[in-house]
Amino acid sequence: MTTANEHYFKLQGSYLFSTIAKKVAAYKEAHPDKQVISLGIGDVSQPLVPAVIEALHRACDEMGHVETFRGYGPEQGYAFLREAILQGDYLSRGINLSADEIFVSDGAKSDVANFQELFAPSAKVALQDPVYPVYLDTNVMAGRTQAYQNGRYGGIIYLPCTEETNFAPQLPKEHADIIYLCSPNNPTGAALTKAQLQRWVNYAREHRSIILYDSAYEAYITQKDIPHSIYEIDGAQEVAVEFRSFSKTAGFTGTRCAYTVVPKTVQVTAPDGSLASLNALWLRRQTTKFNGVPYIVQRAAQAVYSQQGRAQIQEVIRGYQQNARVILTALHQAGITAYGGENAPYIWLKTPKGLDSWSFFDKLLTQAQVVGTPGVGFGACGEGYFRLTAFNTADFTKQAAARVAQLQF
Amino acid sequence: MTTANEHYFKLQGSYLFSTIAKKVAAYKEAHPDKQVISLGIGDVSQPLVPAVIEALHRACDEMGHVETFRGYGPEQGYAFLREAILQGDYLSRGINLSADEIFVSDGAKSDVANFQELFAPSAKVALQDPVYPVYLDTNVMAGRTQAYQNGRYGGIIYLPCTEETNFAPQLPKEHADIIYLCSPNNPTGAALTKAQLQRWVNYAREHRSIILYDSAYEAYITQKDIPHSIYEIDGAQEVAVEFRSFSKTAGFTGTRCAYTVVPKTVQVTAPDGSLASLNALWLRRQTTKFNGVPYIVQRAAQAVYSQQGRAQIQEVIRGYQQNARVILTALHQAGITAYGGENAPYIWLKTPKGLDSWSFFDKLLTQAQVVGTPGVGFGACGEGYFRLTAFNTADFTKQAAARVAQLQF
Repeated sequence: MTTANEHYFKLQGSYLFSTIAKKVAAYKEAHPDKQVISLGIGDVSQPLVPAVIEALHRACDEMGHVETFRGYGPEQGYAFLREAILQGDYLSRGINLSADEIFVSDGAKSDVANFQELFAPSAKVALQDPVYPVYLDTNVMAGRTQAYQNGRYGGIIYLPCTEETNFAPQLPKEHADIIYLCSPNNPTGAALTKAQLQRWVNYAREHRSIILYDSAYEAYITQKDIPHSIYEIDGAQEVAVEFRSFSKTAGFTGTRCAYTVVPKTVQVTAPDGSLASLNALWLRRQTTKFNGVPYIVQRAAQAVYSQQGRAQIQEVIRGYQQNARVILTALHQAGITAYGGENAPYIWLKTPKGLDSWSFFDKLLTQAQVVGTPGVGFGACGEGYFRLTAFNTADFTKQAAARVAQLQF
Repeated sequence: MTTANEHYFKLQGSYLFSTIAKKVAAYKEAHPDKQVISLGIGDVSQPLVPAVIEALHRACDEMGHVETFRGYGPEQGYAFLREAILQGDYLSRGINLSADEIFVSDGAKSDVANFQELFAPSAKVALQDPVYPVYLDTNVMAGRTQAYQNGRYGGIIYLPCTEETNFAPQLPKEHADIIYLCSPNNPTGAALTKAQLQRWVNYAREHRSIILYDSAYEAYITQKDIPHSIYEIDGAQEVAVEFRSFSKTAGFTGTRCAYTVVPKTVQVTAPDGSLASLNALWLRRQTTKFNGVPYIVQRAAQAVYSQQGRAQIQEVIRGYQQNARVILTALHQAGITAYGGENAPYIWLKTPKGLDSWSFFDKLLTQAQVVGTPGVGFGACGEGYFRLTAFNTADFTKQAAARVAQLQF
């Protein structure tokens, strides 16, 4: 009989969100009179902005006429979108890249998940703890870990991000080949400063490692010393790949568009010992295994860079940023220590009185009818923390915050 | 330095379509007065049908309002689309499946490319020659082959499909774990009958192999004894996964939607020797590495199953089928032996006078200003054959056919 990929069987069940859903459903059934508000979701609540909707309608019309219909496009994305990204997110910030270093995709999740395919199975992986589970699980599936024991996979370099490190990952003592960094961070909301990120780029140059830099939340940055792109850091174009998404920037969670930057100067070792371009390898991967993003969606993404589009999405982001401030204020009123929320849509709170993450979940649900995400669901170092998100509507966020402010411990 | 995935370096350069493009460009430059017509593309020419365009516009409007906006959807696809597929393509044909055996995706290419991840690196792969390159290349990238020598990769079971076998793959004498079958076939246009496919299902049951069945062109079947789905065959639900696409059925090549059927009864061996559900493994793969198809695109795909949508796409398909007949007639007039075109949008012609595929390409371009695809580009067994496609417009197809009919050898 055909044998399965053995590494899939090392994966742990992902019961976090299903357990949350069950607990919430049980609570609602027992208390049909209570209104439960979720600050747990990582999904946006605001609709696509008018400029994007108009671009979508125009593109749909094009698809209905033989003269303007579009079939297969380039797997890497249409030039009109790659150029818009290049100009809007890089050249305009003084970062010198070219359009063929930008690969449009259906989501940062897909790209972050697939990118590890380019590396040897023996590559040593370092990642933050707590962490977005996709980085870890896809490396488990690829056989880069040993079995799961005591809450951790053997073979992985975990980089603890806790109150003690101010939620910044510390350079590992051992050698890492692939380093996943997410900044502004999901789930902690912490953002690396230029100085902190420079240390990582220096480490990668010294160790000839590759940094996989997830900056899906860069649009939420408010502080000046926080880089929006890793390519603001000297030397990063030699060692770093950057993942960006329209999901949290422009509400594309259900519209699906993202992009990955792979500078041509990033190199890895080929089997014969020569140097190989990571850009060429990713191009080969994408042209072989992917067929591009829908034309209509690429037109929608292009509209994000129009003058109107930019202004409209900025207003939406300001709304979410305001939600974050409302939540932070409420937590402070309740005497709860909280982090993040300043440069990220995530608030990472320290559970009061040493409660574990799930006990705090229960307390928040039963006392305030507010749902969040237990920090331990993101890794061992998340125990004793709890994630709230700024993505609900302003009204619901205010209501939830008012209840949180009244919490007693 | 970080080491690359060594298997990528076994891949051969894919120069087929770039070489074609260069030759065509050179010819056009030398003969600016001549109109070149392509019957080489595997891409459709007709626009999305009105029912699909209307559904797209409606869905775009929904995305612009907070009440109807959709964020993340289920990775496997919305229930409305999975139910429409189940009813429209399976239950209505007397095939008993359930909606959770259907996984919606952004393309059959992606699914066909990714599915092999679920199997052990040691799995023995069998595939047709000539073949759609994605089956082969993705297994090369996964390390299931040895080096490339004399036009073939070591470790692969090639199933020759030539005039001698009537373009049907013959059962291999050795054991295969994974068998890729494409019917109606790209590039040969041949379609497996129920009796032929039953032999493959029997082989797979006996050997406990998995059949990966690509039926992206089933909408072009005209003959009664050709199955539209492998699940019309007894026992197939134990051994087969089926890939379907809206690309060639409904013109979605630039809109991106497809689906894969993984019956819960298909099993593989887990590391501890127990049986594991392939459906559960694919669900885990998709939920970890993919974030679903855009909501608007899923609404568009749903419209394909509406009464109007069905009638409209049938008319488009009839047009392409008529193109195929026009091409076949012209080839016969020129005294060229041709296959396919009856149950497939592909015509597979035998090059006259023993010309090799590329010589015929040059002759067709210079004498008739028609572009096609050299068969050898699809594998060693494609040498001496040539692919034409029925996807151009009726007008261009007729013009090209008139020129082909006059060819002299």
